[in-house]
Amino acid sequence: MTREAVAEISSVSLDLLKTKMAEFAKERNWDRFHSPRNLLLAMVGEVGELSEIFQWRGEVPKGLPGWEEEEKVHLGEELSDVLLYLVRLSHVCGIDLGKAALRKLQLNAIKYPPPSAAAAANNNYSNTNNGATNTEKLEQKAASILN
Amino acid sequence: MTREAVAEISSVSLDLLKTKMAEFAKERNWDRFHSPRNLLLAMVGEVGELSEIFQWRGEVPKGLPGWEEEEKVHLGEELSDVLLYLVRLSHVCGIDLGKAALRKLQLNAIKYPPPSAAAAANNNYSNTNNGATNTEKLEQKAASILN
Amino acid sequence: MTREAVAEISSVSLDLLKTKMAEFAKERNWDRFHSPRNLLLAMVGEVGELSEIFQWRGEVPKGLPGWEEEEKVHLGEELSDVLLYLVRLSHVCGIDLGKAALRKLQLNAIKYPPPSAAAAANNNYSNTNNGATNTEKLEQKAASILN
Amino acid sequence: MTREAVAEISSVSLDLLKTKMAEFAKERNWDRFHSPRNLLLAMVGEVGELSEIFQWRGEVPKGLPGWEEEEKVHLGEELSDVLLYLVRLSHVCGIDLGKAALRKLQLNAIKYPPPSAAAAANNNYSNTNNGATNTEKLEQKAASILN
Repeated sequence: MTREAVAEISSVSLDLLKTKMAEFAKERNWDRFHSPRNLLLAMVGEVGELSEIFQWRGEVPKGLPGWEEEEKVHLGEELSDVLLYLVRLSHVCGIDLGKAALRKLQLNAIKYPPPSAAAAANNNYSNTNNGATNTEKLEQKAASILN
Repeated sequence: MTREAVAEISSVSLDLLKTKMAEFAKERNWDRFHSPRNLLLAMVGEVGELSEIFQWRGEVPKGLPGWEEEEKVHLGEELSDVLLYLVRLSHVCGIDLGKAALRKLQLNAIKYPPPSAAAAANNNYSNTNNGATNTEKLEQKAASILN
Repeated sequence: MTREAVAEISSVSLDLLKTKMAEFAKERNWDRFHSPRNLLLAMVGEVGELSEIFQWRGEVPKGLPGWEEEEKVHLGEELSDVLLYLVRLSHVCGIDLGKAALRKLQLNAIKYPPPSAAAAANNNYSNTNNGATNTEKLEQKAASILN
Repeated sequence: MTREAVAEISSVSLDLLKTKMAEFAKERNWDRFHSPRNLLLAMVGEVGELSEIFQWRGEVPKGLPGWEEEEKVHLGEELSDVLLYLVRLSHVCGIDLGKAALRKLQLNAIKYPPPSAAAAANNNYSNTNNGATNTEKLEQKAASILN
């Protein structure tokens, strides 16, 4: 692999994916299929395939301990399929996805100001504790509203 | 806005979003909520909100002619929410989303080799033609399999 | 087919499906997989498969004119898969789905009182009219809020 | 509540919901919005709202112990919204959902024959056992294929 390819991989941009998806569609004469709602439904289809990977597993810890390499590769493919249709959908809608995402991060930061360091420290709790405190419940609601 | 900020916006990378999302969660002590299946369901919630934007509109042309600016801004926010949870989900799963997406693009290119230029030219058709040819049906199936 | 079977088909109840799904799981020792979030993700997977049927078609008219019988059978299977997991999810959550649905219909009727017959008559419009009137836009928003 | 209403609630049929949804749309002149893909996207929107209820909770046990009554009522409403759009979507597609669901149950029973009683007994295991046996993994794959 060339040095350029490595550099590319280490910082894949949304614009790069947008360009590659546009070329891919154009070369295959598939632009005519890529209307907004077609792409949205295609993305929903991919979200379904992604969900299937997680559906019978019960809770899955971070880092996916115990998953076989093959399963992780498959997961990467389904995550990618969602991303690629999302990038393409944004493109045909004329939305600059990267710009919109940075703006949304700023809005979220305003909506949910971080607690002070002291408050955050007090808020530490053990994961083995089954009962959620009131503070945690409020935070769960806050996190929920974020969506 | 500084020159750096403009440059950043013009080439937003998945790694940048990953880092920003990780910082956001850490500052708010939300890491404990960000398990893979929690994030997956949160993403499904955002896909739902994205779908609501398109649900009663019938077919929507590319570029969203006739949409008000406010509606486009809202659309950008929902597209971003899906992206941000997707990036975060990939992160907590230990998947390099950018690398995976480039790899998936290569796999797709192998699976669906582009037609020769001549074949592509012959394949042009009018959008006003209601009847899909057999070739088009095959291509639709091909495009469908892609998912 | 016996007369009883015909009668059953003509009025399939949610309780019947609930009972059959419970028996199905029990006979296969699958109850242990049927936690609420497992079933929810399985349902999302089926919604994805349903979406794939519609994804590349552009707008689809009511009644699915031009669809092959085989395609309609496939559609019926995917619609059923969503329903069966929805029924099962409701069951393991202890929710009486039929009762909840009737209640929701009543709530919707209160929230969206039907217009008078005269108003409804004035509201008729031609589907060939490309421009939506203000009244229609308001109704679209109303219908949207319904969700 | 009249005796008829109680009987109705105890055995809500898909046909009843179909009829009620059709009347609801007709009275409000909303038939024009109820194209297959509009309804599908509306259903995806409701699946999103359903997912939001479960998104930050980690694993949720059957029966929803600890949930407040208000939360269960909300859950019933979101489950209902998915059901009502699913019923309506099936209707405008000309699919008899109840009939299709019974047929799908039969197909599933053929695809996944139940184990003999003895095999099922041997297959019992403790939920406190963290390691899945090979048999369980195979069954998980089987259950997965079901979708």
